[in-house]
Amino acid sequence: MAVITIVGAGVMGSALTFPAADNGNEVRLVGTHLDEEIIQSCRSQQFHPRLRRPLHPAVKAFSHTEIAQAMQGADIIGLGVNSRGVHWAAQAIGPHLQPGQIIIMVTKGMESVDGKLQILPDVLHDHLPPSIRDQVKYAAIGGPSIAGELAARHQTSVVFVSRDADILPRLRAAFSTNYYHIWTSTDIIGVEVCVALKNPYALAVGLAAGVLERKGADIAGAKMHNYAAAVFAQGLAETAILVQKLGGGLETVFSLPGAGDLYVTTQGGRNSRMGRLLGLGMSYSDAVEEMPGETIEGVDAVISIMPAVEAMITRGEIPADSLPLLRELYRIVTRNAPVEFDFNSFFNKLPFNPPESLQSS
Amino acid sequence: MAVITIVGAGVMGSALTFPAADNGNEVRLVGTHLDEEIIQSCRSQQFHPRLRRPLHPAVKAFSHTEIAQAMQGADIIGLGVNSRGVHWAAQAIGPHLQPGQIIIMVTKGMESVDGKLQILPDVLHDHLPPSIRDQVKYAAIGGPSIAGELAARHQTSVVFVSRDADILPRLRAAFSTNYYHIWTSTDIIGVEVCVALKNPYALAVGLAAGVLERKGADIAGAKMHNYAAAVFAQGLAETAILVQKLGGGLETVFSLPGAGDLYVTTQGGRNSRMGRLLGLGMSYSDAVEEMPGETIEGVDAVISIMPAVEAMITRGEIPADSLPLLRELYRIVTRNAPVEFDFNSFFNKLPFNPPESLQSS
Repeated sequence: MAVITIVGAGVMGSALTFPAADNGNEVRLVGTHLDEEIIQSCRSQQFHPRLRRPLHPAVKAFSHTEIAQAMQGADIIGLGVNSRGVHWAAQAIGPHLQPGQIIIMVTKGMESVDGKLQILPDVLHDHLPPSIRDQVKYAAIGGPSIAGELAARHQTSVVFVSRDADILPRLRAAFSTNYYHIWTSTDIIGVEVCVALKNPYALAVGLAAGVLERKGADIAGAKMHNYAAAVFAQGLAETAILVQKLGGGLETVFSLPGAGDLYVTTQGGRNSRMGRLLGLGMSYSDAVEEMPGETIEGVDAVISIMPAVEAMITRGEIPADSLPLLRELYRIVTRNAPVEFDFNSFFNKLPFNPPESLQSS
Repeated sequence: MAVITIVGAGVMGSALTFPAADNGNEVRLVGTHLDEEIIQSCRSQQFHPRLRRPLHPAVKAFSHTEIAQAMQGADIIGLGVNSRGVHWAAQAIGPHLQPGQIIIMVTKGMESVDGKLQILPDVLHDHLPPSIRDQVKYAAIGGPSIAGELAARHQTSVVFVSRDADILPRLRAAFSTNYYHIWTSTDIIGVEVCVALKNPYALAVGLAAGVLERKGADIAGAKMHNYAAAVFAQGLAETAILVQKLGGGLETVFSLPGAGDLYVTTQGGRNSRMGRLLGLGMSYSDAVEEMPGETIEGVDAVISIMPAVEAMITRGEIPADSLPLLRELYRIVTRNAPVEFDFNSFFNKLPFNPPESLQSS
């Protein structure tokens, strides 16, 4: 049994309390300053309004003002803020961390830092107080895990990843249940690249639905799954290029963290909804107006990643034409470019010969 | 311009006449003995009843009795029969083949032959008359291509594959249009393994929908996409294992032929419908009764592939526990086994450490 403190009471952090508590751990859920309503509901009725279900009865909820108390004596700190919240989280948890604690991040992805791609566990490390940052250990979770399904105790399969192989068996033992299946891996680069890219690429897959609607009904009812599937495949192929470039493993790409998580992310959610609006022909500026106040992780990710990717291209570390889908997404969300994929630009770094139009280039 | 004869007037063969004819080729569509009604409709009204749309006006339809005439002078023979029809096709086209003709197969996959997996282009080769079988060339098509969408001229991206790199530019030139994007590859093993396995694995992904229905509504409306995504990822990982074992390339797995085609196949169709029925708890024998007269390619494929896979395991060529999903599917469709995946048995040949329950094995 371990003491597990989850910081961030959004859906994903809170969902993680289910396997943690079912497993007999002492589980504490701490809201951020944005989670006050959630925490009040958890305290007064043990009901999580965003997950729309009761919490496990053993989970104790804490307000952000009580974070010191909530982190006291914890073995494992689960970080459940969204990717925008990492810098805040470093400030919030930094003063209360104790040597030997393990931080496991639900928050995942990458940021551009000085022209390089940095994975969020490393961003967190660099923003923690120097006195403690090397006294704690870091891990992250990858793989297809829709929060509401985990909270419903539906079968969920994930990968726990850390550079410190030593801590992984303990983390797995703390969270494994008969519905939460955990593999462990030390390929933190592979996992973080996959999870950072799944949102933009799922958004791109979602465009197909909008393009179909804009085109209007076909006489035989033909859909646009071929379009979506080509984009899905190109997204995974671009993921493989970046994973390999940054030193991750291909096995991470064609299993749970890559293919599995991209698949689940295409099955609905905000990225898909944004994709549909763009596919309908709406400019990004107009589409954003249709989704007021919502964080579109796919947009955040592409904006956060692209400066470093462009710098890598400038430095000659990756060929300029190797990530056409990611670059086109960037144009769409930053310059209101219309959705007009050049399919022939895809797959040009695989051992395939590209379509005719590219033969001479 | 080329003369292109498509043998088999089902949806996929017939869909291929659209890019072929749009590209200015002379296109002939020959039905099998099962396609008489289709051919009559094509002849009398230039309307394809199963694609539910008019054929390109330049396409000429031929009855199976006219196959000699239809194949006369053809540069390219497109083989559009289903995987059960390859032996029939060898007999039907064999007598009329002329040296130098190129056969491009829409029909794809593998069969067990003497305890080994043989790809269908090689099965076709071995069943053609010895006098001609080495005088013609073989190619195949992989990648996500729902027939009705190609016929609607919706964006479709595929890979043309052949051991003879020389014929690929000519094939691509014959079929490329602004909606049919063609990459070429010599990884025929990789492509055939991917296309053979996508149907069983898409069926397995489809189980999640049935399992969810059987379980009944969740209080917060949680779906079972995490379940489906884990199965999707395991299907792709098992595909990678077999592709590597048989000498194909991993790039084929994480791009159009593998990930792209598996994705598109999970988006509906007969494999998914069969998956749902099995997920609901129906035995395979009962589920088949619900879909009378329909060919479920995923079931055919697993039955056709499994004897060779078991022989490979017996010979020690692949570990017994490396394809748990494929083997479980085989048990389901041949022994009416109930659907009860052991998720912890998945991903055990990746560089991940498996879940707790497998630690000792």
